[in-house]
Amino acid sequence: MCPHANGDSLASDPSQMVAVDMSNGSSTHSSSVKTNGVNGRMNGVNGAAKALEQQRRNPYAPRASDFLSNVSNFKIIESTLREGEQFANAFFDTKTKIAIAKALDAFGVEYIELTSPVASEQSRLDCEAICKLGLKAKILTHIRCHMDDARIAVETGVDGVDVVIGTSSFLREFSHGKDMAYITKTAIEVINFVKSKGIEVRFSSEDSFRSDLVDLLSIYQTVDKIGVNRVGIADTVGCANPRQVYDLVRTLRGVVGCDIEIHLHNDTGMAIANAYCALEAGATHIDTSVLGIGERVGITPLGGLVACLYSANPEYVKSKYNLSMLREIENLVAEAVEVNVPFMNPITGYCAFTHKAGIHAKAILNNPSTYEILKPEDFGLTRYVSIGHRLTGWNAVKSRVEQLGLKLTDEEIKDATAKIKELADVRTQSMDDVDSLLRVYHSGIQSGQLAVGQKEALDRLLRKHREGTMDSREASLSRPPSPAPVAA
Amino acid sequence: MCPHANGDSLASDPSQMVAVDMSNGSSTHSSSVKTNGVNGRMNGVNGAAKALEQQRRNPYAPRASDFLSNVSNFKIIESTLREGEQFANAFFDTKTKIAIAKALDAFGVEYIELTSPVASEQSRLDCEAICKLGLKAKILTHIRCHMDDARIAVETGVDGVDVVIGTSSFLREFSHGKDMAYITKTAIEVINFVKSKGIEVRFSSEDSFRSDLVDLLSIYQTVDKIGVNRVGIADTVGCANPRQVYDLVRTLRGVVGCDIEIHLHNDTGMAIANAYCALEAGATHIDTSVLGIGERVGITPLGGLVACLYSANPEYVKSKYNLSMLREIENLVAEAVEVNVPFMNPITGYCAFTHKAGIHAKAILNNPSTYEILKPEDFGLTRYVSIGHRLTGWNAVKSRVEQLGLKLTDEEIKDATAKIKELADVRTQSMDDVDSLLRVYHSGIQSGQLAVGQKEALDRLLRKHREGTMDSREASLSRPPSPAPVAA
Repeated sequence: MCPHANGDSLASDPSQMVAVDMSNGSSTHSSSVKTNGVNGRMNGVNGAAKALEQQRRNPYAPRASDFLSNVSNFKIIESTLREGEQFANAFFDTKTKIAIAKALDAFGVEYIELTSPVASEQSRLDCEAICKLGLKAKILTHIRCHMDDARIAVETGVDGVDVVIGTSSFLREFSHGKDMAYITKTAIEVINFVKSKGIEVRFSSEDSFRSDLVDLLSIYQTVDKIGVNRVGIADTVGCANPRQVYDLVRTLRGVVGCDIEIHLHNDTGMAIANAYCALEAGATHIDTSVLGIGERVGITPLGGLVACLYSANPEYVKSKYNLSMLREIENLVAEAVEVNVPFMNPITGYCAFTHKAGIHAKAILNNPSTYEILKPEDFGLTRYVSIGHRLTGWNAVKSRVEQLGLKLTDEEIKDATAKIKELADVRTQSMDDVDSLLRVYHSGIQSGQLAVGQKEALDRLLRKHREGTMDSREASLSRPPSPAPVAA
Repeated sequence: MCPHANGDSLASDPSQMVAVDMSNGSSTHSSSVKTNGVNGRMNGVNGAAKALEQQRRNPYAPRASDFLSNVSNFKIIESTLREGEQFANAFFDTKTKIAIAKALDAFGVEYIELTSPVASEQSRLDCEAICKLGLKAKILTHIRCHMDDARIAVETGVDGVDVVIGTSSFLREFSHGKDMAYITKTAIEVINFVKSKGIEVRFSSEDSFRSDLVDLLSIYQTVDKIGVNRVGIADTVGCANPRQVYDLVRTLRGVVGCDIEIHLHNDTGMAIANAYCALEAGATHIDTSVLGIGERVGITPLGGLVACLYSANPEYVKSKYNLSMLREIENLVAEAVEVNVPFMNPITGYCAFTHKAGIHAKAILNNPSTYEILKPEDFGLTRYVSIGHRLTGWNAVKSRVEQLGLKLTDEEIKDATAKIKELADVRTQSMDDVDSLLRVYHSGIQSGQLAVGQKEALDRLLRKHREGTMDSREASLSRPPSPAPVAA
C-alpha cells in the first residue's frame, strides 16, 4: 500500500495532467496550491529531497521505507546481442547486429552486451565492429571464467568483460566439474588480468539461487576485495521468486561494496517482478533483452522492465530513455528473429491501451488515470475506447456521440446504447456500424420519426439505411471491427 | 535463497528422476537412502508434515519461514469467461463459452467466473446455460454492488456471486461518485441478500492499491463480520509490485477470518509474481484467465501461474490439475480471440524447452535439472536441444552423433563441431544439414578419406555429397531449421 495513494496527490500534480489529451476537459481539474506548498518546502534542499518530492507526487513510487532501493537509480545491461542470440530463432548477421546496437544506443541503454568472441570467428569480428561504432553505451562481452577466453575478449576493444561460472552443485556436478577452490582461484586470475587492461570487469555466478549461500557470499567477498567492478547474480533456470530475490540481493548488499548486477530467466513469468525486487534490495544493474528473447522463454524484457520502472518513477525513466523508440526497437528485433510481438506485451501489446468494459470506458473518459498507470503519449502511442460490444456502457457511447458532433439527450443515448448491445449480442459491431446507428438515431430524432423507446421505428429506420447503403457497405464488410480513438 | 537448494535433495528424489527420459542414463543417479530417512521420520505424522516433506524434497519450495503461505493450498477462479470477455478481441458465442467452460472444468479449476447477466440478454442466457452443464467447478458471476444486479444474478442458478465496487478516491470521484458510507451500506444489503439465497458471496474493492488503507480494512472487517465468504483485493490498473501485494494481503490476513481472493492486472508484467506473493501472504483464491486475456494487456495468466506454482510444489499442482490439457486450452482460447500464443509463454511458448548455447546443451544432456525447473513431460511436451548454430558445443553434437548411431572419437566430434560453427556463422544449419555433415564426416573417417584437422578433405567430401544430393535437397530447401529432439 503506497502511503501516497490518494487521488489528490495525482490530480494536483500539473505534470501528470498536462499531457492528458481529453476532449471533454474534465481532466484539467487541478488543485495546484497543495502541490506548490510541497514544492516550496522542498526547494533548494538537495537531490535526495528532489527524489523524495517526485515520490510524493507519484502514487506508485516506492515506499519511503525502502532506503536501499535503486528503483530510481539503476543501469540497464542490454543483452539482446548475447542472451538474445541464444534464443532458438535468433541468427543475427553483422548488419542486423549493428542496427540493433545503434537502436539500443539511441534508446539510451547504458550497456550493450555481446556474444563471446570465442563462440565463433564471426562473433569475434562482429564484436570488434560494434566496438568501433563509437556508441555512447559501453560495450561488454560475456565469457566463461577462463584465461583463454579473457585473453581473446580484451583484444576486441570492449569497455568491459562479463565473466561467468556455474557455482551451484548442479552445474558443478553436471556442467564443468570444478570445485569452489578452483573457481575462486580462476576468478581471481581472470579478474586481475582484465583489470590490468584498464577495462571494467564483472564476476557472476551462474544458477545462483541453487548455489550454497556461504560459498556464494564467500566468492563475492573475495572478488570484491580484489576490486571487481560488479558482481552478478543469475537466476539461470528461472526458479527464483520475488521475495527470494529481494532477500539474496539484500544479503549480498551487506557483504560487498561493488555494484550488483542481476540476470533473471523468465520460465515462470516472474522475471520483470524479480528485477524490480532486486532494485528494491539494492541491485544497481539489470540485464534485459528486447522482448526478453534468450534461452528457452528468455529473460527480463526491456519493455516490461521499462513499464514497471516508469510506473514507479515516470520522470526518472523519461529522463534516461527515449521511450517513443520502444516500439520500433521491438519491431526490429521481432522481425530479425521472426516472432510476433506478443498481444499482451506491456506498453506495445496491440491492446495495451484499449478500454472495453462500460465501467472502465466511462471512467477513462472522465480521467485516464482511473484505469491507466502508463501514459500512452509518453511512448508515442494512442489510447482507444472500444464501444461496439455487449459490455459497452452509455457513457462511452456518449463520448462517441460528442466526437461525431451529434446532439442527443442522455435518455436518447441510453436508448441507442440498448440497441448497440442488442446487435452486439449477435456480432461485435465495427466502429462504422456504431457510427451509422448513432447517425440514423440522431436523424430520426431530428426529423421526428423516432422517440425514446420506439424500438420498431428504430429497426425500420436502420433497415431503410442498410438498404440505401448496401452497395457501399458490401465493400467494407470484410473490414475488422475497429476501436474508437479517444484523443481529440 | 532456498535452504534446500542443493543438488542432493533433488537428485535423491526418485519421483523427480523417474520421468527424465534420457538416453545416456546418467540421470538415473540416485542416493535414495537419504530421502528414505526423511520419509521415515515424517511417516504417519499429519498433513502438515507431509507438506513439509514435499518442501524438503523440492529445492524451489517456499521457505520454511513462510508460515502464512498458501502456495500449496489455493484455489483458482478462472475468469476467461468474464475478465477475458473484456479483452479487445473477445466475442464468445454460446457454443464457444460452453467449450471453454468444459475444458477449464476438465483441467480442474475450482471456480469458473462468468460475465454479469446484466451486461446483455445473451450474457444472462449463457450464464444459465453454463450453470446447467453440471460441471465440477463452481460457477460464479461477477456483478456491480447493486441490488438490481444481485436480484438478476441469483436467479441464474450460479453457485456464487462476486460483488465489486470501486473504493479508490480515483474511482469514487471519476467512476461511480459514491462515498464510503454509501458503499458500506450497499455492500451489507447485497451480501445479506445473496447469502439469504444459500449461495457463496464475495465482496471485492476495485483499484484496491490506490484506496485508502483504513477505509479498505474497515469495509473488509464489516463484511467479514456479516459472514461474507471471501473478500477480494483487485489491482485494477496493474500498478502493484510484489512486496506491496505481500504487505497488503498479510495485513488483511490479520483483519478478516474469511477467504482472500486477489485479482491482478498485468500492465507492468508483474501479475504472475504478484499472485505468487499474495499466496505467500495468505491469500486463498487467485483470479486467472487463459493466456491472461482481459482489459488492456489482461490479468494473471492461467499457464504462467501454474508454471510458478508447479516450480514451488510440483506434486501438489500435478495432483490438482490435468496439466497436459494446458496447451489445448490455450489453443482453444487463442483461436477464439484470434491471437497467437506468445512465443515466450511459460510452458507452451514454442521454445520453452529448447536449449541452444553449448554450455546449456551439454549440461542438459547430463541432467535436465541443471537448466530446467519444469519437466516438459508433465505437460505432455518434449525437450529439444538445438545444435545447428554458432553457439553450439561439441558435447551437444556428441549426443546427436550417438542418436544417429555413428561412431566418432571425441577429437573427431570436436573437429566436426568446428565445421558446424564455421557454416553456422554464415547461415543457421537445419537438423538435416547437421546430420548430413556428421554422416559425411563419419563415412570419410571410415573409408580413410578423412582424418582430424584435414579441412580441405572435409570440404571436398561435403561438396561431393551436395552435388550428389542436389535434386533431393532442392525440394527441402524451403524447410525451416528444426531443432533436435533429445528424448529417446
